[in-house]
Amino acid sequence: MNEFEFTPTYDTVCQAADRIRDVVVRTPLLESPALNKKIGARLLVKCETLQVTGSFKFRGAYNAISSLPDEVRARGVFAYSSGNHAQGIAHAAEMMNIPATILMPEDSPAIKISNTRGYGATVVTYDRYTESREEIGARIAEKDGLTLIKPYDNPAIVSGQGTIGLEIAQQLKEKGLTADYLSAPCGGGGLISGITLAMAKESPTTRLIAAEPENFDDTTRSLALGERVSNEPGHRSICDAIVTPMPGEITFPILQGNGVTGVFLTEREVTNAVRTAFTDLKIVVEPGGAVALAAYLSGKVDIAGKTVVAVCSGGNVDAPLFADILLEKL
Amino acid sequence: MNEFEFTPTYDTVCQAADRIRDVVVRTPLLESPALNKKIGARLLVKCETLQVTGSFKFRGAYNAISSLPDEVRARGVFAYSSGNHAQGIAHAAEMMNIPATILMPEDSPAIKISNTRGYGATVVTYDRYTESREEIGARIAEKDGLTLIKPYDNPAIVSGQGTIGLEIAQQLKEKGLTADYLSAPCGGGGLISGITLAMAKESPTTRLIAAEPENFDDTTRSLALGERVSNEPGHRSICDAIVTPMPGEITFPILQGNGVTGVFLTEREVTNAVRTAFTDLKIVVEPGGAVALAAYLSGKVDIAGKTVVAVCSGGNVDAPLFADILLEKL
Repeated sequence: MNEFEFTPTYDTVCQAADRIRDVVVRTPLLESPALNKKIGARLLVKCETLQVTGSFKFRGAYNAISSLPDEVRARGVFAYSSGNHAQGIAHAAEMMNIPATILMPEDSPAIKISNTRGYGATVVTYDRYTESREEIGARIAEKDGLTLIKPYDNPAIVSGQGTIGLEIAQQLKEKGLTADYLSAPCGGGGLISGITLAMAKESPTTRLIAAEPENFDDTTRSLALGERVSNEPGHRSICDAIVTPMPGEITFPILQGNGVTGVFLTEREVTNAVRTAFTDLKIVVEPGGAVALAAYLSGKVDIAGKTVVAVCSGGNVDAPLFADILLEKL
Repeated sequence: MNEFEFTPTYDTVCQAADRIRDVVVRTPLLESPALNKKIGARLLVKCETLQVTGSFKFRGAYNAISSLPDEVRARGVFAYSSGNHAQGIAHAAEMMNIPATILMPEDSPAIKISNTRGYGATVVTYDRYTESREEIGARIAEKDGLTLIKPYDNPAIVSGQGTIGLEIAQQLKEKGLTADYLSAPCGGGGLISGITLAMAKESPTTRLIAAEPENFDDTTRSLALGERVSNEPGHRSICDAIVTPMPGEITFPILQGNGVTGVFLTEREVTNAVRTAFTDLKIVVEPGGAVALAAYLSGKVDIAGKTVVAVCSGGNVDAPLFADILLEKL
């Protein structure tokens, strides 16, 4: 047992699915016959870029806030986030007519900060390389009586993200397919752990892969070592959405208990995946959202002849950066 | 009656839907709460950029080829197209294991030519400003015994494109909505006429709008005048997918008979819509595919407080051009 109010399970994922059904997009599971031919595999892409607020984070955010007791929720919520959890929380709070304050790194993509403000949240910025978001966050939350909704170490968040796994399992069944691999981007692990809970029950033969950026491969190394280890501080990454310091307290045991493995991708592999998503799938994927696709395209996972699923988790990327990636400047 | 083998109707659209159901993507009807707030309307985007081959054209192409008698189909098909019909025909032919030859303008987007070749078709290029595709096409088709599949003046093509209208009507019903306006890009009119057949029956109060690029507003002017008129030759447009000379022989009477009106958009209005689709919807839309969205964003249609649908019809755009649009160089 952990310090949290409950342990996320397959059942709590199903409960989350019921709770959020009417407000989330059942995102498509796309594929490109041309791309399949090129890579010699059947690749299906779960397109969470098309989720409300442009990333999967809205699922967990809505589930977590709507699970709060009425009088607690009414005081408002607080979150720290590089931007996708921020937008998810801000929009969910807006829908429920409660105040939201979000602490964001000052170097977050402009689109993420402006969208979060657009959803009516109060945005406070900090320096992610010198300040602790946990400390600043605790002070703000206490002062205004806000409830902190952590980005991944929260069972309602993990359960909400797991609804993606339920949808993937159902969409694969509709196509008469079973996936050999399912890969999802991994920062703190909220997404991949939730999906793992769903897939372990729905499709136990599917092997799950946590995809991470180079220098932020804490989950890959932790899973190999059998214990949670941190990233070396001081690195930067184009994958702003998933540059967390170490695996989550709730999320890591789920991955470890279900044989999930990790893989890390270089910046070049990630930008190549962003371009492929543009050219072959016609979707806008931010770098951090493209690492799972990159895992397959890079050759680091042996997918020849297999059926594989990649979650493209978000599309909140600034236009100038996306243009640079398209022009192969990155 | 016309020279064609049948007149497309609501019923032929429904038959097309049955014929193509297992091979097409039921594309999502997306919306962005943030964008809705900005424009003061409820905007739903039918996202045919996510269709097989990256545009709606695959629907009509598959329907038309699969409707041919077996022995005719076996000899192969021929098409002329700036690229989206080309890819639709090429991929449908590939799926049915028959040869396809496609005549394309030599200045078609590189992505469209290479994708068409990737689907196994033989591509022949011509100069769209000095040569007649109809004449070259007739020669090629006759020589090899191929069946010409015209891009819009073909009742099976119109019926196939109309399946988009059936899906939109069903998706709106699922959301409990009725659209005040539905706009779709218009070149020869295959898409908007097919959709009109579906919507006239499914949602008769919805007003239909054909969206065209500046200098290629032949349908807009023809509808206003009550007869088919041509564009002045010699103009060029960023909207390569929809720069046809005049409304189709089959398509125009459908538009005229159902009170469809037209609107034309400047290049600036179109590129603005491409950027909005990127930023707010996370989808890759080619310029010609974005004119219907541009119709609403431009202010040329009074959408205040209304529920409006835009078809984003294709996403086959070269990366350097898309980058220039994102960087506001266009």
